[in-house]
Amino acid sequence: MTVPAIRINEERLHDDLVALGEIGWDPAHGLARTTFSRAHSAAREWLLERARAAGLQARVDSAANHSAVLPGPPGSRTVLMGSHLDSVPSGGRYDGALGVVCALEVLRTVQDADLRLPVSLEAIDFTDEEGTLVGTLGSWALAGVLTAEILARPRSGRERLLSELSRVGLSEDGLRAARRDPGTLAAYVELHIEQGPVLEREGVDIGVVTGIRGNMSFEVTLTGAARHAGTTPLNARRDAGRGAVLAAKAVGDVTAGEFPECVANVGDVQLEPGAFNVVPGRARVMFECRSVDRDELDRLAARILDRVRAVADDCRLDAEIRRVGHWAPATTNPDVRSAIERAAEDLGLSSMEMPSGAGHDAQVLADVVPAGMVFVPSVGGVSHDPSEHTQFTDCVNGANVLLGTALALARDHTFA
Amino acid sequence: MTVPAIRINEERLHDDLVALGEIGWDPAHGLARTTFSRAHSAAREWLLERARAAGLQARVDSAANHSAVLPGPPGSRTVLMGSHLDSVPSGGRYDGALGVVCALEVLRTVQDADLRLPVSLEAIDFTDEEGTLVGTLGSWALAGVLTAEILARPRSGRERLLSELSRVGLSEDGLRAARRDPGTLAAYVELHIEQGPVLEREGVDIGVVTGIRGNMSFEVTLTGAARHAGTTPLNARRDAGRGAVLAAKAVGDVTAGEFPECVANVGDVQLEPGAFNVVPGRARVMFECRSVDRDELDRLAARILDRVRAVADDCRLDAEIRRVGHWAPATTNPDVRSAIERAAEDLGLSSMEMPSGAGHDAQVLADVVPAGMVFVPSVGGVSHDPSEHTQFTDCVNGANVLLGTALALARDHTFA
Repeated sequence: MTVPAIRINEERLHDDLVALGEIGWDPAHGLARTTFSRAHSAAREWLLERARAAGLQARVDSAANHSAVLPGPPGSRTVLMGSHLDSVPSGGRYDGALGVVCALEVLRTVQDADLRLPVSLEAIDFTDEEGTLVGTLGSWALAGVLTAEILARPRSGRERLLSELSRVGLSEDGLRAARRDPGTLAAYVELHIEQGPVLEREGVDIGVVTGIRGNMSFEVTLTGAARHAGTTPLNARRDAGRGAVLAAKAVGDVTAGEFPECVANVGDVQLEPGAFNVVPGRARVMFECRSVDRDELDRLAARILDRVRAVADDCRLDAEIRRVGHWAPATTNPDVRSAIERAAEDLGLSSMEMPSGAGHDAQVLADVVPAGMVFVPSVGGVSHDPSEHTQFTDCVNGANVLLGTALALARDHTFA
Repeated sequence: MTVPAIRINEERLHDDLVALGEIGWDPAHGLARTTFSRAHSAAREWLLERARAAGLQARVDSAANHSAVLPGPPGSRTVLMGSHLDSVPSGGRYDGALGVVCALEVLRTVQDADLRLPVSLEAIDFTDEEGTLVGTLGSWALAGVLTAEILARPRSGRERLLSELSRVGLSEDGLRAARRDPGTLAAYVELHIEQGPVLEREGVDIGVVTGIRGNMSFEVTLTGAARHAGTTPLNARRDAGRGAVLAAKAVGDVTAGEFPECVANVGDVQLEPGAFNVVPGRARVMFECRSVDRDELDRLAARILDRVRAVADDCRLDAEIRRVGHWAPATTNPDVRSAIERAAEDLGLSSMEMPSGAGHDAQVLADVVPAGMVFVPSVGGVSHDPSEHTQFTDCVNGANVLLGTALALARDHTFA
């Protein structure tokens, strides 16, 4: 089968990005489409309407994953494409949304060209990727790896999770029932903005994601003794604030000094009682660390926690360490990577292999199905911010690479 | 004039401490008598009632300073004693209150003994020492050093200050009108708990305060760029959180390493937006530093701020530095110190000279009148906490030293 030189419809893609970008947009705070918010539901309804308007099937599973489907022959496997329509509280228009809209556009383009592929194509919007409630909830459900542990201690707290599920008519049983037999899936391909500065800096059109950094996050609580800051000599203090500062410093020092391929971040520090004249009696340090390699991630986390415990000892503080989140690193499939690279080459676009620093639904899917990711440049590397932007040319490039990749995977599938 | 061997009434002192300690006490949160709260007003009313019940004059000035007065001969100068009845939000029963109750007890004891002193004695409760609104507001008003700058940028914010003043029937003009001519004051003596561990550690009964550490407090705001923590390489970040951590570390390092006689405290650190996966784009560090010496305090603050600016440069952050508060160091009067030392000696109590790390009304009064401070031990050095405690024996010792000091100052006054 020769791949026909078809291209996505730029005008339609443009109109869709503009229309979708208005749903939940507030000029002052950017995009607010947190999971199951009114704007989030409106965006998902919009997706189903666009699918139906194009003559595609619209589908919602029992984890509230929303899909547009272009069916192949009876019993055929599915090339799944997509991302997510939810956003962080004050996010941008491209994170997640671009991958869903481009996947939809691929389906419409194939349908317009009247290609009869030996596979089904599906454009999916996964539930709660950003973690208003759990994080990658929909993809965990679809991959069938949603454990009791994950549901017992979700990011939002268990009470809020249950109340939100109930409010929108979902249940834990339903989440588990959303599992799809991996044998029915040929591949998963996710187009996403890079959310970092590398492609822009290197002047490269397309990123071919080699692996997705795993992520462990921790909350460290240090307890000392709140004392009057004027009357208590420095050497008589059990200063939880000093401990927090040294522990936070160690997170960066260990990562930069011993794990140059990894990243880490101290996202928050809280001191109590938080007054100028009181030596902090309690402090919290919230940090995460990431690596593309499972062993390296374990070593990095262990090394940081060793240093944190040593700081606590030095400062005569009690330390309580709680692991908050854990996403295992994932490796993308070499065949899918090759398909992406060839698709870019066929379009005359430059590409480079790169890891993904951010977590994605593809990270979850990669465990059960051949998966790959296409990155397009983020202007200034900005993401999770209202000013997040990707040039429209890059959106078109990404959509055409996704199309070419899907067609190649469909073809390979035939020969498989 | 021979000083008669009179002693304060222990039972009356005990009953007063118990009764006053109930006003605003909550077993869960300790003492809540913030300025102009209902409990604070109740405590001040209680003081006036106790004064009237003892046949003393009750007086409230236009800064809401509350006093009990035992008048001397017409035109005589006043030996002023006291402290404050307001508390931090979740404080203890002794900070401030002990000094007011003991001063009241001194007046009653002198009256009971029917001593005719050549001075007036006054037990004063200063308004807002702890700084719910301004800090040492009442003593600044009485000393006549309340500047427009202080009132323009109070700790509580100007709006809250004006609304609270208006609510309790005070005004800025009234505050200024509360100034007392220093020529009418013979001395100011303040009994206070140490709020630190030194007397207890040294096994000494009475602290004779040599000077009161001055205090400068600063809010440093660092601005970088909020970025995705997974996708932004460490060396591409402008991490305001990292800057805050290094700046906070410098506060302690400079003080411990270069100014061993001084103290400093990082009271609060705030990172924005405060999420695990976002590199902080903005951070605030709130710190204070203290010295008993004006020049040293200036040098300490300047040296810390130099390091903070260097950190900001290294981390490519913008730094905005705001001075929040400033209390100049104060030196107590040598004659008052001698009077305290002799009074302790006459009672067979051990005493030692020591600086005060905490700020006090005496710090303000020392600029305009001969002033001194008597410290009694704090159990475990704890203060500004519900568990703050001073053994009753030490309260009695302190009250008797205050009595002996007042009588000595009255006698010296006669000979002056």
